[in-house]
Amino acid sequence: MSRMKLYIGNKNYSSWSFRPWIGLRQAKIDFEEVQLWFDFPAGNPEIKALSPSGKLPLLEDGDLLIPESLAILDHVARKFPQSGLWPADPLWHSRAMAMACEMAAGFHALRGTCHMNIRRVPSKIEVADAVLSDVARIETLWARSLAESGGPFLCGDFSIADAMFAPVVNRLDVYAFDVADTTRGYMDRMKALAAWQEWETASRAETAVIAEEEV
Amino acid sequence: MSRMKLYIGNKNYSSWSFRPWIGLRQAKIDFEEVQLWFDFPAGNPEIKALSPSGKLPLLEDGDLLIPESLAILDHVARKFPQSGLWPADPLWHSRAMAMACEMAAGFHALRGTCHMNIRRVPSKIEVADAVLSDVARIETLWARSLAESGGPFLCGDFSIADAMFAPVVNRLDVYAFDVADTTRGYMDRMKALAAWQEWETASRAETAVIAEEEV
Ligand SMILES: N[C@@H](CCC(=O)N[C@@H](CS)C(=O)NCC(=O)O)C(=O)O
Ligand SMILES: N[C@@H](CCC(=O)N[C@@H](CS)C(=O)NCC(=O)O)C(=O)O
Repeated sequence: MSRMKLYIGNKNYSSWSFRPWIGLRQAKIDFEEVQLWFDFPAGNPEIKALSPSGKLPLLEDGDLLIPESLAILDHVARKFPQSGLWPADPLWHSRAMAMACEMAAGFHALRGTCHMNIRRVPSKIEVADAVLSDVARIETLWARSLAESGGPFLCGDFSIADAMFAPVVNRLDVYAFDVADTTRGYMDRMKALAAWQEWETASRAETAVIAEEEV
Repeated sequence: MSRMKLYIGNKNYSSWSFRPWIGLRQAKIDFEEVQLWFDFPAGNPEIKALSPSGKLPLLEDGDLLIPESLAILDHVARKFPQSGLWPADPLWHSRAMAMACEMAAGFHALRGTCHMNIRRVPSKIEVADAVLSDVARIETLWARSLAESGGPFLCGDFSIADAMFAPVVNRLDVYAFDVADTTRGYMDRMKALAAWQEWETASRAETAVIAEEEV
């Protein structure tokens, strides 16, 4: 069985790469990491050559090449059911999936305005009402899941739902949104994860600065 | 065991409702359908009261209320593994999931310009290059899957991948895009499905016209 390879972008900026990476690492899944840099004037030709959708992340597992952060996480979760990447309880599995889908398909105002930026020194920026609505919906969703699961993570133990929201935790943090204590508590627990710490240290060590990503 | 309820919007316009509906119906899953109409000046208050995300579709299964078209399909597929909603082969399951995710998260240019409209009399409209790029990516993805699975549907037999792309089949059809023969063949097979026919007949019987959805 050959080792799985996860292709990712710049750790400081690639929000979609962060999702499967933190999920796999936190679940102690073995994989080889391959970084392809985004900072090419007309896009990195290696990414274009490799990725059917032209995007990262990508997982290579034997002959299979899987794009899409959520599809990568689901593939690994089904391959290693003991990883706990999906909650063992079928109803919580469904709730985790619903949260992951809402994240993958939505929150465009927040994502478009406040780019993930691990190294950013926290400070507020002026944002449109649509961004505040996204943040309000996220806080409601998190608060309800934490209350009903009992925490410490969205569905109890760390799961794909948390992995998918990891870049949102960074955004709420570095753009210094005023959030409820419950939200802040969840963010602090996410940032304290060993896998988060490892990704953050590597982001801080990267030297590439992408002007369009700096808000 | 109480009957599952699927809350959907207007059949003629609600692309996200069409996805789980055609999946469940084609897989012969029993469910009660509840329609909540979109044509209210400030949004249908019943949708707002019911839906945590403020959106449709929603699946009610006992105490569980699941938003997100893909999460609904995945929930039902796991509950009824014999339905074939996910391909039985784990690698094709992963490919189907990757296609479903790419659809759920992407193709914004096509979706924003060419709204699903089941009743629309086919005719071309002027579109931006980004729309044509989306169509090109979709045609490549479909052609490759059909070739590698052997068809007649994207992963062989009808699956969640097809359900997720159903509204795209309508868009390519009613905005009369110039597509390859392989693409057209797949579209014709989708439109001939019993479940598609049933949805189309019901869409034609609806009388509500939503001006912003008519392109
Ligand atoms: N829906 C995709 C989104 C992937 C995505 O947009 N990736 C970005 C980097 S964070 C990318 O590769 N952008 C390069 C491009 O769009 O050319 C996923 O969940 O993986
Ligand atoms: N990502 C969601 C999208 C759902 C969605 O956008 N639904 C539309 C109807 S097709 C809706 O409810 N719009 C009402 C609104 O946004 O207020 C899914 O996959 O179900």
